[in-house]
Amino acid sequence: MHETTGLPVVGMVGGGQLARMTHQAAIALGQSLRVLASSPDDSAALVARDVMLGSHTSYADLAAFAAGCDVVTFDHEHVPSQHVRALAAAGHTVLPGADALLHAQDKQVMRTRLGELGVPVPRWAPVGSADELAAFAGGTWPVVVKAVRGGYDGRGVWVVPSAAEAAELFATGTPLLAEERVPLRRELAAVVARSPFGQGAAWPAVQTVQSDGICVEVLAPAPDLDPAVAADAERLALRIAGELDVVGVLAVELFERTDGALLVNELAMRPHNSAHWTIEGARTSQFEQHLRAVLDYPLGATELAASAVAMANVLAGPDLEGAARLDERVHHLSARWPHLKIHLYGKQPRPGRKIGHVTALGTDLAALRRDATAAAAYLATGVSDEVRHQ
Amino acid sequence: MHETTGLPVVGMVGGGQLARMTHQAAIALGQSLRVLASSPDDSAALVARDVMLGSHTSYADLAAFAAGCDVVTFDHEHVPSQHVRALAAAGHTVLPGADALLHAQDKQVMRTRLGELGVPVPRWAPVGSADELAAFAGGTWPVVVKAVRGGYDGRGVWVVPSAAEAAELFATGTPLLAEERVPLRRELAAVVARSPFGQGAAWPAVQTVQSDGICVEVLAPAPDLDPAVAADAERLALRIAGELDVVGVLAVELFERTDGALLVNELAMRPHNSAHWTIEGARTSQFEQHLRAVLDYPLGATELAASAVAMANVLAGPDLEGAARLDERVHHLSARWPHLKIHLYGKQPRPGRKIGHVTALGTDLAALRRDATAAAAYLATGVSDEVRHQ
Repeated sequence: MHETTGLPVVGMVGGGQLARMTHQAAIALGQSLRVLASSPDDSAALVARDVMLGSHTSYADLAAFAAGCDVVTFDHEHVPSQHVRALAAAGHTVLPGADALLHAQDKQVMRTRLGELGVPVPRWAPVGSADELAAFAGGTWPVVVKAVRGGYDGRGVWVVPSAAEAAELFATGTPLLAEERVPLRRELAAVVARSPFGQGAAWPAVQTVQSDGICVEVLAPAPDLDPAVAADAERLALRIAGELDVVGVLAVELFERTDGALLVNELAMRPHNSAHWTIEGARTSQFEQHLRAVLDYPLGATELAASAVAMANVLAGPDLEGAARLDERVHHLSARWPHLKIHLYGKQPRPGRKIGHVTALGTDLAALRRDATAAAAYLATGVSDEVRHQ
Repeated sequence: MHETTGLPVVGMVGGGQLARMTHQAAIALGQSLRVLASSPDDSAALVARDVMLGSHTSYADLAAFAAGCDVVTFDHEHVPSQHVRALAAAGHTVLPGADALLHAQDKQVMRTRLGELGVPVPRWAPVGSADELAAFAGGTWPVVVKAVRGGYDGRGVWVVPSAAEAAELFATGTPLLAEERVPLRRELAAVVARSPFGQGAAWPAVQTVQSDGICVEVLAPAPDLDPAVAADAERLALRIAGELDVVGVLAVELFERTDGALLVNELAMRPHNSAHWTIEGARTSQFEQHLRAVLDYPLGATELAASAVAMANVLAGPDLEGAARLDERVHHLSARWPHLKIHLYGKQPRPGRKIGHVTALGTDLAALRRDATAAAAYLATGVSDEVRHQ
């Protein structure tokens, strides 16, 4: 219990932008998020009062952190399973729990379990050698190879054109799995939240747009998606959340195959980039909802606050040297697009790094998308045909 | 400049809920609000990383605080004018500046100036004795007596039924002014923001509902207000902001007389209770807008995110003992009203104290108002006909 407010204390392991935006949501609930950060310059550590510096791979640090929390939750999937289990065994409330979280940490466990549940997934198999990969491919290349653990934002994923080209991957000894390359119409995501009580709430399914494996745009709700298919996606995500006993936000990344079928690609059990649009675009944001879920509060309403929403990530460009220029860009951006919502994460703008996102809300999705992507590109690079320098 | 982000640092003097909600808005802009708080348990100090403890009446503390800020602004009007002037003289950027701020600190200066500008105000006069008060009244009682400085939330305001009853007030030596008791239809507020560049932006005029001099409800936009009168109110507020060289948010509290005329009652030059509804109810909240203004960023769009908004303050009831009960109430409230947005300030629930607010958004103002007031009453007291205990 917080010594001043008497309210339960939520602690988040990891000090990235997800923790930063969760802290922002926590403030409205009378909370102050406790953060385990690796550096005082971490995105969340820059804005939260209750920050402990430590490592998410050190059990001693995790245990010391948990001692000051009523509930421990996560900004990423990289806490070792055995540590999550040990925290729970020591009497800490850890949500999502280790058994659920494993499905967001280990792609082989996840695919095996989803298969058992009859959830459609791409054809896949664990592969330990180039020969096994060739056997899996059966002559159809390319094949997608993924690290069983540790990948994110396109890392740990390789599109392999032949068995010979995969030799290097197998040489590292990293556990790998192979996956058919799905003929894609596009990628979707169904994001839901679930409480320990078992209440579930879904946001409308969205379209996600990737570039080099990194999400660059999210369109909500997913345009031109058959309402029955959208409802199926939302139900599927709620079902997975229930079957895996997820508590908190669950993001289900989906492939929409060219024949219209939906296949589950990945799971994330935390606030997720595909639902950043909910901050302004839905009555309850994913960050507030994650807090509500881990606090076992009844979940908030998830309906849209606008008929269409476009979110674009700001991926720092090579020329974004120093934040003085970022500040100048915010000026220009605000003059050009006063309706756009800016979110900056306080991160050093190393090239390719997600340093923020922008959200446009309204009715004309094409226009919103044009504005959001132009604004994000301008923030990232200082160059945009859409901006008239003043 | 912030040592990590390189962005300008905004400091707010005062650690109340306005600073708390400004910090929340700052996070999205890549900022982290620096706060001068009187205690580590202040509302904003509970959630902000960069907190200095000190007194807003100590110039040494203010100067030390300002040294770490690019811009200094305020969560209240209680910083002595001479200190505000001295900070500016020492080269600090202080917004709003001392000359503007004086009009929110000194009711006599404000009324005199507004009179010079031809802005309609209630009939008033400075009064130094019961005899002067009687002369002002001219036989028509009651008369409103106000402390020239230091009043807020109904403090420093007395409705006086006769000269004899005012004797005690004059005995204290506090500078006072007398004001006609305006025959009221209701109270309104026009809230705007203005940047140093001179850009202005207005939110729609709202109706405020007071009880014992404390704002308890805000309805946005003001229902049944002639659009021409609403536009007049907004223009008037923008004009006052310009004439007084206000930077930041300016709230103009208005009386709507029974004959429909609008008179200016009070001015506040900071985020204001009458615009808390903008957090979810407008594209840009007053907190973000205040930051944009003091940073001289272009202002954000102010249009409504819903056609009707009702906000109700949570004034702690006598039986709200300890926050464990508050936590329980949040549970019940969330189950009963999943659409409602809760804002808790982390404050100790002393009876009558504003400890939070709730906001309802939609289309049916009567229903929104019923929900917001019932929910606020339930949070405050644990009693509501609207809540079925579970």
